[in-house]
Amino acid sequence: MKELDIKQYMQGVGRQARAASRAMARASTADKNRALLTIAAAIRRDAAALKAVNAEDVARARERGLDAAFIDRLTLSDKALETMAAGLEQIAALPDPIGEISNMKFRPTGIQVGQMRVPLGVIGIIYEARPNVTIDAAGLCLKSGNATILRGGSEAIGTNTALAALVREGLQAAGLPNEAVQVVSTTDRAAVGELITMTEHVDVIVPRGGKSLIQRLIDEGRVPMIKHLDGICHIYIDEDADLQKAVVVADNAKTQRYAPCNTMETLLVSERVAAEVLPPLGKIYQEKGVELRVCPATRRVLEAAGLNGLVDATEDDWHTEYLAPILSIRIVANVDEAIAHINTYGSAHTDSIITENYSTGMRFLREVDSASVMINASTRFADGFEYGLGAEIGISNDKLHARGPVGLEGLTSLKYVVFGHGEIRT
Amino acid sequence: MKELDIKQYMQGVGRQARAASRAMARASTADKNRALLTIAAAIRRDAAALKAVNAEDVARARERGLDAAFIDRLTLSDKALETMAAGLEQIAALPDPIGEISNMKFRPTGIQVGQMRVPLGVIGIIYEARPNVTIDAAGLCLKSGNATILRGGSEAIGTNTALAALVREGLQAAGLPNEAVQVVSTTDRAAVGELITMTEHVDVIVPRGGKSLIQRLIDEGRVPMIKHLDGICHIYIDEDADLQKAVVVADNAKTQRYAPCNTMETLLVSERVAAEVLPPLGKIYQEKGVELRVCPATRRVLEAAGLNGLVDATEDDWHTEYLAPILSIRIVANVDEAIAHINTYGSAHTDSIITENYSTGMRFLREVDSASVMINASTRFADGFEYGLGAEIGISNDKLHARGPVGLEGLTSLKYVVFGHGEIRT
Repeated sequence: MKELDIKQYMQGVGRQARAASRAMARASTADKNRALLTIAAAIRRDAAALKAVNAEDVARARERGLDAAFIDRLTLSDKALETMAAGLEQIAALPDPIGEISNMKFRPTGIQVGQMRVPLGVIGIIYEARPNVTIDAAGLCLKSGNATILRGGSEAIGTNTALAALVREGLQAAGLPNEAVQVVSTTDRAAVGELITMTEHVDVIVPRGGKSLIQRLIDEGRVPMIKHLDGICHIYIDEDADLQKAVVVADNAKTQRYAPCNTMETLLVSERVAAEVLPPLGKIYQEKGVELRVCPATRRVLEAAGLNGLVDATEDDWHTEYLAPILSIRIVANVDEAIAHINTYGSAHTDSIITENYSTGMRFLREVDSASVMINASTRFADGFEYGLGAEIGISNDKLHARGPVGLEGLTSLKYVVFGHGEIRT
Repeated sequence: MKELDIKQYMQGVGRQARAASRAMARASTADKNRALLTIAAAIRRDAAALKAVNAEDVARARERGLDAAFIDRLTLSDKALETMAAGLEQIAALPDPIGEISNMKFRPTGIQVGQMRVPLGVIGIIYEARPNVTIDAAGLCLKSGNATILRGGSEAIGTNTALAALVREGLQAAGLPNEAVQVVSTTDRAAVGELITMTEHVDVIVPRGGKSLIQRLIDEGRVPMIKHLDGICHIYIDEDADLQKAVVVADNAKTQRYAPCNTMETLLVSERVAAEVLPPLGKIYQEKGVELRVCPATRRVLEAAGLNGLVDATEDDWHTEYLAPILSIRIVANVDEAIAHINTYGSAHTDSIITENYSTGMRFLREVDSASVMINASTRFADGFEYGLGAEIGISNDKLHARGPVGLEGLTSLKYVVFGHGEIRT
């Protein structure tokens, strides 16, 4: 398509989404659940056909020389298909957030004022190779009464188109508009440019992907986003920490998995307990193959305990999300220095203090300016399922609207409702 | 200042605001209230001096030939000063939203998860001639634990600088940082450009002013905004309306005041009751000097009742916020047409239905996609004080973050807090 054609095509997609969003906003819980369960059943029924289509996408990606991690994300295994279907059933089982009216209070004038939870409207999802996002995102947006425009990576276009047909089948079975979930049919990048700027048709963009994708969307977009760029998560081991808890939690936060955004990237340790807690921890990390990038004080403590192979941390390290078996470690004077370090170098994602001291814990909780702040728990808990949201469309580092793990409620808004009896303002 | 100097100056203001916001986030309720009450007392004490400084601003504005309405907004009367001082005392009396922890629930893993209300951080306020905004906005941001950067109109710079000195006095008396409230000292427009794009230092912009100012900020800004552009508010008189209520409410919504954003601009009437309710309403409007811009069906009904001097409404009228004694009127078939008209031509501000029919009222409530939706009440109630928020920084037409009248809570965010006991993720 030419650029002008893409603009017209995307404007058409946007207009149809807006129209469909009106029907979705008034859709009953039963109809939305029927659509979700029908899609789940169709995925199980068509598993073989989906894998065949997916195999063509995978073959093309291999021809283009894409790496093994990419191929892995792109591939639809039996397990991945079952996870998608089960995920839709879980979303169907969640309470419907839409229409809830809360806090209706009478005012002295006689009017009664409260708030009603309503869908955001039209949500654009921009993602890379993972075809499961097509189903997860469509399911969450559908349950929350939104219309969705899905723009997946060009490498998955065959798989995504096949999945979109099943979504349409579910919408039709429930009497919901076909255009409630649309997959962008062109792989031209200009379509993304249009999607993130057509503020009249799209209410929010949820990008799912790497930092470079998201930074580009931030730079070029006009539609608000629910997104996070980095997960530079910290644990601070306080002078009043239970050091056994500290070792167990700091180990888990780094080594349970290296790639997630809620994995710890920098460990801060009070100078009062560094000599006691760092040697056993350093040994665990090195045994698991974690490279340690350390401040000079940490080097002294670890080398005195016989640990070697340390790397000097640079200023850049405190700013870096490794997503790899690498950990930066810094010794700080006290909780004030720890909070200052986190608020300076962190990414406002998730940070945890290990302490038994009530006042120190409460200060950390209040003053660390991050989406999730924890006491005596692993940063790895920052997750929609772990928090009890039931499902997660993403994690937000922003302060406006949704913050932290974003579930169904983050895809909704509150409007004021007023019940009157003919009242006028005087 | 040269452009480069302005950029450096604003970056400095931003950095100082960010630093001050850390102290404000942990400020006690008592200290914040002490600051507010000290500023209120200082305004009363220095009323004569403030009026003298303001008189110089007013004289300059007169020399520049600015119109009477502008001069009126710029002028600090004794009443305006007293309203400012009393407003600060009211804000001091409001509950402190910061630090509230809610919904702490145990999860199966043993962690306890909930949310804490925290300040947004740094709020930029951009406004025009009204110097009272300096005090109102500073007071609300201070109470909600935010740092504030105020950029008022160049015509009020003398008055705003004098008011800023009193704010500083209050901050000092409470031991809070001077930079918690900063008034931009240059009147160069480049300062606004910098303020709305320095996303690293400013968390949200609240513009207070006319549509052209706000549209410019939207076009050029990168920092998120809490704002509304238009108030194209509707009343729909349903076929099942109590017509006595309808007349009283529709009169009030248009004629109580013409300039506010929550004044009705378009009246929609069911064709089933138009012949009965429009003639008495049309007569009231014409007696009060309201120009009526009508659809053909409305013209027939009103002319049959002997009313003249009607103007034919054009497509543009349905899109227009008059802010004047002008009203557009359209007869519609039913509530479906009314909802479609409002969602097409409205500005998602405030819309009200007059009906005694439960199902019709509930449909209107759910399907009209506006920040405030009412049944049997005047749109003029859409206001922070009337809704019981205690105070109002503005009204938002957006769906993300705050929607409708925005009080203290709209200047805050929720972060997740996790209480653990050494839990790890497995």
